[in-house]
This record gives sequence, C-alpha cells and structure tokens, in this order.
Amino acid sequence: MTRPHAMDNASPIDAWRLAHAPWYRPASDEAECFAAAYRARLPIMLKGPTGCGKTRLVEHMAWTLGRPLVTIACHEDMTAGDLVGRYLLDGNGTYWQDGPLTLAVRHGAICYLDEVVEARNDTTVAIHPLTDARRFLPIDKRNELVAAHPDFVLVVSFNPQYQHRSKDLKTSTRQRFVALEMGWPDARAEAEIVAHESGADAALARQLVELGERTRTLAAATLQEGASTRLLIYAATLIAGGMDARTACRIAIVQPLSDDADLCTAFTAVVDSMFA
Amino acid sequence: MTRPHAMDNASPIDAWRLAHAPWYRPASDEAECFAAAYRARLPIMLKGPTGCGKTRLVEHMAWTLGRPLVTIACHEDMTAGDLVGRYLLDGNGTYWQDGPLTLAVRHGAICYLDEVVEARNDTTVAIHPLTDARRFLPIDKRNELVAAHPDFVLVVSFNPQYQHRSKDLKTSTRQRFVALEMGWPDARAEAEIVAHESGADAALARQLVELGERTRTLAAATLQEGASTRLLIYAATLIAGGMDARTACRIAIVQPLSDDADLCTAFTAVVDSMFA
Amino acid sequence: MTRPHAMDNASPIDAWRLAHAPWYRPASDEAECFAAAYRARLPIMLKGPTGCGKTRLVEHMAWTLGRPLVTIACHEDMTAGDLVGRYLLDGNGTYWQDGPLTLAVRHGAICYLDEVVEARNDTTVAIHPLTDARRFLPIDKRNELVAAHPDFVLVVSFNPQYQHRSKDLKTSTRQRFVALEMGWPDARAEAEIVAHESGADAALARQLVELGERTRTLAAATLQEGASTRLLIYAATLIAGGMDARTACRIAIVQPLSDDADLCTAFTAVVDSMFA
Amino acid sequence: MTRPHAMDNASPIDAWRLAHAPWYRPASDEAECFAAAYRARLPIMLKGPTGCGKTRLVEHMAWTLGRPLVTIACHEDMTAGDLVGRYLLDGNGTYWQDGPLTLAVRHGAICYLDEVVEARNDTTVAIHPLTDARRFLPIDKRNELVAAHPDFVLVVSFNPQYQHRSKDLKTSTRQRFVALEMGWPDARAEAEIVAHESGADAALARQLVELGERTRTLAAATLQEGASTRLLIYAATLIAGGMDARTACRIAIVQPLSDDADLCTAFTAVVDSMFA
Amino acid sequence: MTRPHAMDNASPIDAWRLAHAPWYRPASDEAECFAAAYRARLPIMLKGPTGCGKTRLVEHMAWTLGRPLVTIACHEDMTAGDLVGRYLLDGNGTYWQDGPLTLAVRHGAICYLDEVVEARNDTTVAIHPLTDARRFLPIDKRNELVAAHPDFVLVVSFNPQYQHRSKDLKTSTRQRFVALEMGWPDARAEAEIVAHESGADAALARQLVELGERTRTLAAATLQEGASTRLLIYAATLIAGGMDARTACRIAIVQPLSDDADLCTAFTAVVDSMFA
Amino acid sequence: MTRPHAMDNASPIDAWRLAHAPWYRPASDEAECFAAAYRARLPIMLKGPTGCGKTRLVEHMAWTLGRPLVTIACHEDMTAGDLVGRYLLDGNGTYWQDGPLTLAVRHGAICYLDEVVEARNDTTVAIHPLTDARRFLPIDKRNELVAAHPDFVLVVSFNPQYQHRSKDLKTSTRQRFVALEMGWPDARAEAEIVAHESGADAALARQLVELGERTRTLAAATLQEGASTRLLIYAATLIAGGMDARTACRIAIVQPLSDDADLCTAFTAVVDSMFA
Repeated sequence: MTRPHAMDNASPIDAWRLAHAPWYRPASDEAECFAAAYRARLPIMLKGPTGCGKTRLVEHMAWTLGRPLVTIACHEDMTAGDLVGRYLLDGNGTYWQDGPLTLAVRHGAICYLDEVVEARNDTTVAIHPLTDARRFLPIDKRNELVAAHPDFVLVVSFNPQYQHRSKDLKTSTRQRFVALEMGWPDARAEAEIVAHESGADAALARQLVELGERTRTLAAATLQEGASTRLLIYAATLIAGGMDARTACRIAIVQPLSDDADLCTAFTAVVDSMFA
Repeated sequence: MTRPHAMDNASPIDAWRLAHAPWYRPASDEAECFAAAYRARLPIMLKGPTGCGKTRLVEHMAWTLGRPLVTIACHEDMTAGDLVGRYLLDGNGTYWQDGPLTLAVRHGAICYLDEVVEARNDTTVAIHPLTDARRFLPIDKRNELVAAHPDFVLVVSFNPQYQHRSKDLKTSTRQRFVALEMGWPDARAEAEIVAHESGADAALARQLVELGERTRTLAAATLQEGASTRLLIYAATLIAGGMDARTACRIAIVQPLSDDADLCTAFTAVVDSMFA
Repeated sequence: MTRPHAMDNASPIDAWRLAHAPWYRPASDEAECFAAAYRARLPIMLKGPTGCGKTRLVEHMAWTLGRPLVTIACHEDMTAGDLVGRYLLDGNGTYWQDGPLTLAVRHGAICYLDEVVEARNDTTVAIHPLTDARRFLPIDKRNELVAAHPDFVLVVSFNPQYQHRSKDLKTSTRQRFVALEMGWPDARAEAEIVAHESGADAALARQLVELGERTRTLAAATLQEGASTRLLIYAATLIAGGMDARTACRIAIVQPLSDDADLCTAFTAVVDSMFA
Repeated sequence: MTRPHAMDNASPIDAWRLAHAPWYRPASDEAECFAAAYRARLPIMLKGPTGCGKTRLVEHMAWTLGRPLVTIACHEDMTAGDLVGRYLLDGNGTYWQDGPLTLAVRHGAICYLDEVVEARNDTTVAIHPLTDARRFLPIDKRNELVAAHPDFVLVVSFNPQYQHRSKDLKTSTRQRFVALEMGWPDARAEAEIVAHESGADAALARQLVELGERTRTLAAATLQEGASTRLLIYAATLIAGGMDARTACRIAIVQPLSDDADLCTAFTAVVDSMFA
Repeated sequence: MTRPHAMDNASPIDAWRLAHAPWYRPASDEAECFAAAYRARLPIMLKGPTGCGKTRLVEHMAWTLGRPLVTIACHEDMTAGDLVGRYLLDGNGTYWQDGPLTLAVRHGAICYLDEVVEARNDTTVAIHPLTDARRFLPIDKRNELVAAHPDFVLVVSFNPQYQHRSKDLKTSTRQRFVALEMGWPDARAEAEIVAHESGADAALARQLVELGERTRTLAAATLQEGASTRLLIYAATLIAGGMDARTACRIAIVQPLSDDADLCTAFTAVVDSMFA
Repeated sequence: MTRPHAMDNASPIDAWRLAHAPWYRPASDEAECFAAAYRARLPIMLKGPTGCGKTRLVEHMAWTLGRPLVTIACHEDMTAGDLVGRYLLDGNGTYWQDGPLTLAVRHGAICYLDEVVEARNDTTVAIHPLTDARRFLPIDKRNELVAAHPDFVLVVSFNPQYQHRSKDLKTSTRQRFVALEMGWPDARAEAEIVAHESGADAALARQLVELGERTRTLAAATLQEGASTRLLIYAATLIAGGMDARTACRIAIVQPLSDDADLCTAFTAVVDSMFA
C-alpha cells in the first residue's frame, strides 16, 4: 500500500511523493508506452473502465520515474481556484497559496486529473497551454505565467463508457493527448492481483476471479457492470480473515453489484454453485 | 437514548462519543458482518428502506467497537467545505477549522454519511481516496494530505427505493463498499422494539405491529410506504401516556401516512377493527 | 392581538415570548392532541388549508404551555445559515450569532417551521437529528452539537392542497411527526371568530360567514379557493368602521378572491343578494 | 411633480417624505376605500393595468394621510437583504443598516411594493408577519423582531394582465390584502390629466385622448396594449414645446407602441386622419 | 475619432466628456427630435438594426448639447451594483463608490444604456423612477435617494430584429420612452460616411456601398444580415492602405458575413463582378 | 518552442513577450492580411478548425510586429473580473490589480481571445468599445476609462464547426472584425511542419501526413474529425524517439481519435497497410 506522507511545510510537494513502491502487474505494453510518452513530455490520456487499474499504473510510473504524483479527482463543482490556488488572509493581509496543479507545474510532478470529463470548462481550458508547445500555466489572479518545470507532465483519465451520457471531451482538448487504452487484466493476472492484495491463497483467488467473470457475463446481459477486481479483493480479504465464503461473497460482491432482486438472486446462485 | 455531549474545546472529537450504550436488537448477521468489515477496514454501505434501523446499527457498532461516531446527513446543498473544513477569521487573521469528516479521519472515528446519494459530486469524489488503498483526505485549501487514522472507516447509507428517481450512485463509487442489505425486522422483533422504546406493554406492542403490517400491505397497493417502526413507537408512547388508542393511531399513524382521503379512510377502518 | 416584545440583548429568547394570551376557539380535539404530543416531546405536523388557524393554534399552545414560540416561515431561498446562525465580524474578529432555530433548541422554545415543504433540502435534513432519539442540532461551522433543551419541540405545518405541485415531503422526513389534520371551523365557530376579531355584531358575522361559504362553493367549481376567515374579518372590520356593506364586501372579499371578470360578477351577485 | 429630498443623515425616513402635494384626479371611490382600509390598518392591494395611476394614488394618499412613502420596485433579483437591511463594515467592525422596508416599519411609513408578483419567495414570505395580527418584521441576521409602528401599512400593486404568465401570487399571500381594482380614467378625466401634466390646452388634450382610445381599440385586436396616458402626455408636451403634431405623435405614440410595420402604418393613419 | 480622457480623480464625470466633435451625417430629422425630447427631459429610445448609427447619434447629441455621455453596454450578467455603485474597502473601512449610472444622475450627463433588452430585471426596474415624474435613483445599499440633476436624461437603444427572440421589453418599461426609429442611411449618405471614415476616394466609397447593398439583398433571402457600414469602412481602409480590392473585400466583407460556403461563394461572385 | 518568461514585477507585460521567434510556415496570404489589418488597427478574427495553426499564426505575428502577446482562453465560467482585473486586499486595504486584457490595452500588446464564442455575454460586451472608434476599456469597478495604447489590437478566434451548436456570435459582435479564414495546410506544407516539430525525417513525415489525410476521409464519413497535425507530430516524435511505428500510431493517432471499436479497427487497418 502506497501512502503519501503528511504535508511538510518546508516543501509542500513532498507530501505528494510516494513512500513505497506500489505493487504493479503489467497487463500489456502500457508501462513502456507511458515511459516513452513521458520521455518526450507528451500529455497522456488513460482510457478504460472502472477499476481496471488506471490509478495504479500512474502510481507505478511516478515511482519508477522518480517523480511526485499530484492526483486530482475532477468533478463539476471544482473551480479553477481549487486547481490553481487562491489568496488567503492573515494578520498581514492576503498571501498566495498555490493549488495542487500549480504545485505540480512548479516542482515537476506528474499531475493526474482523474475523470477529467467531469470537470467544468474553466478547468479543461486551463490545461490547454500546459499541453501544447507553450507549456505554461497562466495564473490570472496574479498576472503570472508559470513556466512548467522540465519534468512536469499532465496525465488524465476517462471512462469511455460514461462518455456517451451528458458530457464529452471537445476534440480541441482530446487531440492534445497520447491515449493508452486499458482493459480488464486476463484471468491469470487478475488472480495474481487478488492474491497479492488480500493475502488469500492462489486457489481461492482463482475461484473468485472465475466468479467475477461470471458476474460480468451476467451483468452484461442487463447493461450493467460486473464485479471489479476491487470487489474480488474485498471478498478474498474477508474470507482470509475468517468469514464464511458465501457470506463474504454476499456482502462484498452480490449486494454491492445491484439492488435488483432478480439480479441478486442470479448472482447468489452463481456464488452457491461455486462455494457449495 | 444515546446523546452526544456538547462540544469540549480540549478535544473536538469527544463531542461525538456516545454517552450510553444504545439499545439494539439484531435482525440477522448484520452486526457480525459489520464487525468483520471493520476489522479489515473495508468501507461499508448500508442499504435499506426508511426507518429500518440503519442509524441504530451504526450507533450500536460504534459503541461496541469503542469508536466515536461522526454522523453527517447528506443533501444537495452541502459543500465540500461543510465536510472538510474552512478558514475562519479572528483578530490574528484566518485560522483553519476541521470539518466533521476531517475530524473523523484524523481521530479514527467511524464517519457515517447518511443518504449519500443526496450528496453533490464534489462530496462523492472527495471520499474516493478515503475508500481505496490510499486512505488519505486531500484538503485542497491547505495543500494538505491527511492520512487516515488506522481506526477510521467510512460508512454510508442509501435507500434503494429512492435510487430510481433522479439520482444514482456511479459504479465507480458504489464498488468501493462492502454492502449490507437491511430490511424490516420480523413481527416479533418489531414488537420487542416498540415495547422497549415506548414503555408500552407487550400486548399493545404486538397489536400495533400487526396494525403496521396491515398498513404496509394496504400502502403497497398504492405504491406508497406503510407505517415505519418509528410511527408505531409514537402511537404506543401516546397510548402509554393515557391517550385513547384510536386517537393515538389517528394522529401517529393514519395522518402521517397520507393526505389522500380514501387511503386515510381505509387506514382508519383498519384501526377501528383492531381497537373497537 | 399577541405581539412579541422587541429584542432584549440580555436574553434573546425573550423577544419570542408571547405578551398576551391569544384568543383561541377550539374546533375539535386538536389542543388536547397537541398537548399530549408535547408531553411526550414528539415532533408535531399541522396539516390544513390556508388560513384555517394553524398559526393561531401554535400561539395558543405556546401560551398554555408557557414556552417561547420561535416562528420561521420557510421558503426556497432560506439557507441553513438563516436557521442555524452565522459568524459576524466586529473589531475583534468574528463572533458567532445563533440563528432562530438554534435559539429555540438551546432555550427550550417551541420552534414552528411554517410551510416546511417550501424549504430546501439542507433545511429539511438539518432537522432530522432534532426529530429522532438523538435530539441534537449539529452546527457544522462550529463543530458543535447542541443538545436540545428538554422543553424543546419542533412543529411544522404544510398545506396538502399545495403538495401535489412541484414539491413534496420525503417519507423519511414525514414519518418523523405526529400529524394533526385541521380544517375550516364550522359556521357557528367561524361566526364567533369573525365577531371577536372584528368587533362586529353577531348577526353581521353570521351573514358574512354564510357569504364566505357561498364563495367557497362557487370557487370549488372553478378549482379555486373561496374566502378565508381572514377576509370575512376584514369585511366585518370595514363595515364596523362605517363602510357600506356592499363596498366592504367588494374590496375585502370579491376583489381579493379573483381577477377573473366572470367569477367576480358571480361573487358580486351573491353579495348583492345578501346585502340588498 | 413630487420629488423626495436627498437623504438627511439625522433621520433617514425624511428622505421619503413628499415635498409637494401630488396632483390627483379621482376616478371612483378608490381614495375613500384606501383611507378606510388605512384607518383599520388593513394591508392594501392595488390591481390594474400599466400606467392607470396606481403609483399616483399611493402618493396622493401618503400626502393626504401625512405619512412618508417608501416605494420599492420588486424584481426577481431583489434579495431579502435589499429589503430588510445588511451589515456594513467600517474601521470599528460591522454595523447594521436598515433596509427600506425596515425603515418604513420602524417609522410608520406607508411601504409600497410595486409589482409584488415579480419578487422572489423570500420577499413574499418576509411580509407575511407584517400582514396579519402579528405585525412584526423578523430580522434573522440580528435575531430582532421589529414591532411595526402603529401608523405602518403595507401596500402592494400588481397587474392582473401579467399574472397569467409565469408567476402568480399564492393564495396564502393574496388573501392577506384588501384589494382595490383600478382601470383607465374615462375620456374626460384623462383629458384633464393630459392637459394638467403637459401644459397643453384642453382641445389638444381631448384630441390626444381620442387618439389614445383609438390606438387601444386597434391594439386590442392584436392582443397588445394601446397608448398609456403617459404617452399622451409626452405627445402633448412635445407639441406644446413647438413640435409639429404629426412628428410628436410619431415619436411619442406610434414608435413606442410597436415595432411591427403594419401596426405602425395603421397607427400612423389614425394620427394623420386626426392631425391632417 | 472621439475618445474620452482617462479618469481625473478631481471630477470623475470628466472622463466621460467627449474630447472632439464627432463627425455626424444626419439621415432624417432624428437630431431635431432628440433635441426636442431632451429639452422636455423626456427619456429617449433609439430603435434600429446593428451598426445603423445609434451610438454615433448619441455622441453627436451629447457634443451638441454640451453634456458628458456615460455609455453602458447592457448584458445579462450586469448587476445593479455595476450600474449604481458599491462599497469598497480601504484601511479606514468601507467607502462608497458611485457606479456609472449614479455618476450620470448626479452630474447631469446623458446616460446611454446600449441594448437595454439584454439587461436583467433589476436593471430595468432600477431605471423606472428615473423615467417618470419622480426623477430619482434609489440607492438601496445607502438608503439614499439621488435626485436627478436637471440636465440628466436617460437614452436606451434596442434592435427590434433581436426582440422576437427570448427577450422583450415589458410594456411598463417601453411606454416610458419617446422612440426614434433609425434605419440604414441611403446610398449617397452611406458613401459619404465610408469616404470620410476610411480616407478612401468617393468613387471607391460609392462602389463599396453598392457592394454592401447587394450583400444585403442576398443575405435577406437567407434570413441573415448583410454588410454593415462598418465593414464597408474596413474594406475601404484596407484598400486605401494599399491592399488589393478583392482581398480586402474577402477579409473585410465576405468572411465576416458568413461561415456558410455557398453564401460566401455568392458574395465572392458579387465582389469579383465589381472589382474584376 | 516559444515560452514566455516568468513574470517580472517591474513590468508585468514583460511576462507576455515571446522569448524566441516561433517557427511558422505560411499556408497562404494570412500573414500579409494580418499585418495590413494590424497597420490599420482593425480587430481581427481567425476562423478555422481545431489545430489548423491559429495560435501559431498569432505568435508569429506578435514576434514579427514586435508586440507582447496576451493570450486568453475563453470559457463560460470566465468572469469580467478575470479579464479586466480586481481589487485585492493587503495590510493597507484594497489595491487594484489589472487583469490580462487591461494589461494588454494599457501596454499596447496584441490580445488574443481564443475560442471567443465560449465566453459569456459580459465578456463579449466588454470588448465592444475596444473594437470601434472609441478604443477604450471601461473599468466599472474603478470608474476608469482606459484609452487603448496606439499599438493595441484585439484578435479573436473561433471554430465555425462548433458554431452551430448551442452558441453563436451575435451579428453586432461579429461585424466588428476583419476575418481570416484558415484551413488545413496542404500535404507538402504539413509534412514540413511535422518534420520540423518532431525531428523526424522527411519520408516518415510524408507517410504520416498521408495517414492523417486518410483518417480525415474516414472520419468525415462518420461526422467526426480526423487526426490534427498535432497528433501526427506526436506520432513522429515517438517514432523518432525509438518507438515502433505501429505502436506509436496506435497511441498517438488511433486511440486519441475515437472510442468507437469499429472506427478504431478501421483506423488501425489503415496504419497497418502503411507500416506493414
């Protein structure tokens, strides 16, 4: 588990350095592509479904490349001030405090905007000069242009399955990024991940991965999503901690997946057939 | 009745410690499942209808596990500042005040977000790093990453019957939680609860529970909800205090349930048949 | 007429004490039911049409029970700060000022939220912990939990005829209250009220009440409301002050009721037939 | 012409006293009805079309009754703070400044809310306790209840022709007022007004009034409004100042009435036939 | 070219005095009508299409009448504070700064609200007492009524072609103004304007005016607008500066007029036929 | 690569001076037209699709003309304060800070509003007096009129392909600009650009340009956009850095272009046929 230190006032970027090497199991050539794009300082977009490992890849690359990682979860109520910074007031008047994006730009961190499609227009537009030849961040409130540190790169993620809903990335934003498509790991890789993260043995991990795949097949028929790797790890963790397998699968897989009684019955039947 | 102390400036978390053991009557294995998930520090989601006892379960577990309980009722006008904290001003300039979520994260409380589906996107997104391997809370306004206390766990609730309306939990949020489904207690358990909470005798409690079930059957036919356990307790309390049973049922059960004249007449007929 | 004193800084709740006993004429058992619910400290909801006497009942009960009465008219622009309080600034920095709800909670007043269905979600949610076993008011901005004074009770009102429009009370809110249904007083009671409030003699009051009932019959046919008791009192007051009865009915009853020329003609014909 | 003095700091209400008796020509019994309602301190609603003299009536009554007149034009961007008051900041911290409604309530002015139907809900609700037996204004921000001065009365206006659009007065607001319906003055009265206000002679005034009536007939056929008395006064003023009558009617009557070429041609033909 | 001086603190209105006589070529009797309305201090509305010379007329009249001219472009994000003024903060607390409308009212300027139909309701309503017998501006935030300087007059403009879209002037606002309808100058007048403004010779100016008229005919068939006089001046300026006539017409007339390929081809064919 | 210096407090405009001559390859006569319009100080509009080189042209002209370049990306959340400036607070009270537009106006920079159609009305209206004979910027908050420096010119861009969506430029804004239409460079020019920017050899650049054109043909059939020159440069950069050509085209061209599986397959087939 990788956990940042609490903030040290001496250098605020240090709070964003990873303390331990994250465990990462490559699915394909995504790490090499990321590294090559980083060497050319090209902006990177990670495309893929919920829980397929986008955050984990970015943590792995930040560790491997030796850069701090500033992660910002985008949402529609986030303002430009949340990203860039703001003036605060103390007894001597106002002083400026850099926001997380500005920190990353000044100190050469990798800045990861998670689910960028959720951001408002002012955020999307603010990153344009950081993703072309200009490589600077204008801070309107200070009349300052912050030239990006040579090691800075912007990484964004989005889930194409959500894109067809209300929001979409404009072409003028989208064509600023090299894009890496990510999918579910294959069964063998996923079992390794489940075992590693939960402490469960390999046989149980393989069984849970098979269960996960059957929920995905079932769910697809109803246009929903099946169990993510995360949920399989939850179930494995509970079983490894002594819980009955069917109870663990009920609360960590079946109930999180759906509120529909028929679908839950179908998922439960699958669980029962595997852990009779 | 469990009531927190008023806030003590010495340690603001103490206001959120329960003063007395809450009375709790288990319906199934929900307490064991909650405890196991807590031991693994997995985030927990409670699913169930209005008044089925979700808040009571969380209070029971907080008492049993010896943790403070910070309860936050979610709504669409709640801002991230309401959760995380804000700068206040005194004669020496601004100073920071932790919000209730930050308090819980720093001090290892159980943080309970009631009706999480009502929250805005910025709230839902703010809890993501608290519910995966990162376990930290970013405070953008301070450029601080608060590492969660080892005893901290996030609990959320939602009512699946409301979910099909305008709001829904995104899959990327939902699959971060172990889920416990809760329903109405059975008749015997409900009668015990009504008697315990109201001070009424067992016979009256059983009679009111039967009345409650008949309102639920009637209401279901009109796509509405029947009397919650809370309303049965209200009626029992009034009768125990000396009120005529039919009057108590009229003001504590029939009138709160509906404004529709026909439905009220039907409910009243049921009351009359039971308390002739 | 009951009128609060202007605010006395020594104890801000004193501004909300009634100075005189309000005149109240019971319609049914509403006062007994209110008193019994208050003795058990159950939250109370008053249901009924415009001007049927909900405010008057609450004033009567506050006087009878010897409690201050804090009345808050709900509307969709009211913020939680308007209810709970806010920080103000003076030469020494910010200081906290309780809002009217907090005042009532601390000092054991009856707090009356008029037309609660008009309030925003943050208001509706803020009252949840005050209407269950917890009986406290969380003040997020201060990290304070205010335990309710033992004499505090919350009373809300709403008009079921408006409910079917755009807004509705959620079941999880509604089932927190004992509900008293109120309707128009009968003709004899209404005539007593009109005579008492206007100073008019009993014969005129009876005549105006009959006029009021005929407008209600007429209006119902066009899906509108007829004259409230208040308008009858206005007409009686003007006549008692020397105005011609037909002029008084024109400006106090016909014109306030409608802008539709045909409907006004019909109302006028009724007036003319009674005050020829 | 009645014009208030500029504000005198010694007594802010003095700015709202009328300096000269306004010229007023009664159309019917509206002044007597207004005076009787004022004597009983009943709230008053003036109903009528654009420019029929509602503002002029209120000014006349304020002068006759010897009260200051605080006029507030309602609109949907007006906040409760604009009406009630707000805290301002100087070197010693914040101090309170009464808004115009509060001024009127404290000092016994007539407060006139023009086009009340345009106001937001918080405004409409704020006036409820001023228009029933309570007669006080709650100032939430100060926890103050301002008891109304015995001479205070609230007057509102609205135009029933606009009411069917997007906005409407709720019955619970509307039935708080005695209502005076006002219409256009008859031809003879209107000619007197035009002559008095413009300085034109009686013959020209009568001619313009006839022109005005013909535009109203024409306009009604196209669901629009004809020339108000104000526009007739404009034309008379320009002619009295030396302008050619047809030019004056073109710029003061035809062009203000419509942008539709056909309608303007029709209006012009009427002008030409009268001022050949 | 008429350009205001930069602001002089001694008298802020001086920034709004015209430094040079603007060049103005009358199209009809609009200047005489404006002057007569100004003499009677009647509010003036200028109606006409984009670029027909409304702003130029107002500048000409302000110069001729010797008044400062305060021009305010209306838009839907403009607040009443932008017009009327606001409190600012310095070391001694807050102080008041007049907005441009207040400046004009106090100092007897002509205040010109350009495209008034774009303004929000609070703006439209704020000008009502300035456009009737009252002639004052209420400043709610200061409880001040500013009596208008005797030389003050309000002028507004709007484009009837836009009016049928989402916005419209309410009759109660519209009938407060004398209205001057303005249209395109005739060919001879337009050629004089083009020659004067661009420095081009008369033959070229006439040719461009003919081109402009042909674009208007073409555009009308597609429900769009043709070249304004401004664009003709642009083309003449570029040609007078040495640019090839067809290139100048392409970038100053064809491309600004439309993005539609077919329409641009048609416009280009017209250009080519005239400047072969 | 042209990168501005970080801000120097001595002269804030210096941060916006270009440090190096940008590389620019003219496509047609756009540079001459821009220069001629600048000599006449006419406002300039650049029309063209995503990534066709509008920003690059403006940088080239700013360098050639020796002017600072202030670039502002427009979006719907940008306020007038972001453009014009705002008051900030220090120990001595508030002081004024020019926004980027004001800086450009005072110091004679070229001000480039990118994607002006995204701006709100208050922005669009604020630039009107800067784009006609007045040439000043009103700063309402200071009651200041800033006369434009003689070298100041405003340049805006917009993409006609987006215009038919929800937003459009009003004619009264659009006809204030000379317009330069820009399109994709021809194949030879584009190959030169790709080679220059990526360091790839000419043969690879030509091959990628051919690939780019084939994606545009394919994409047009599905109403989408094909690869911009920027994406071709990305691919060339990665290949020049040692990456396999098919991998580089997958992540720099295919994946950024679309999330549609069928379309990606078609693009991939094109890539495979060219880099077998």
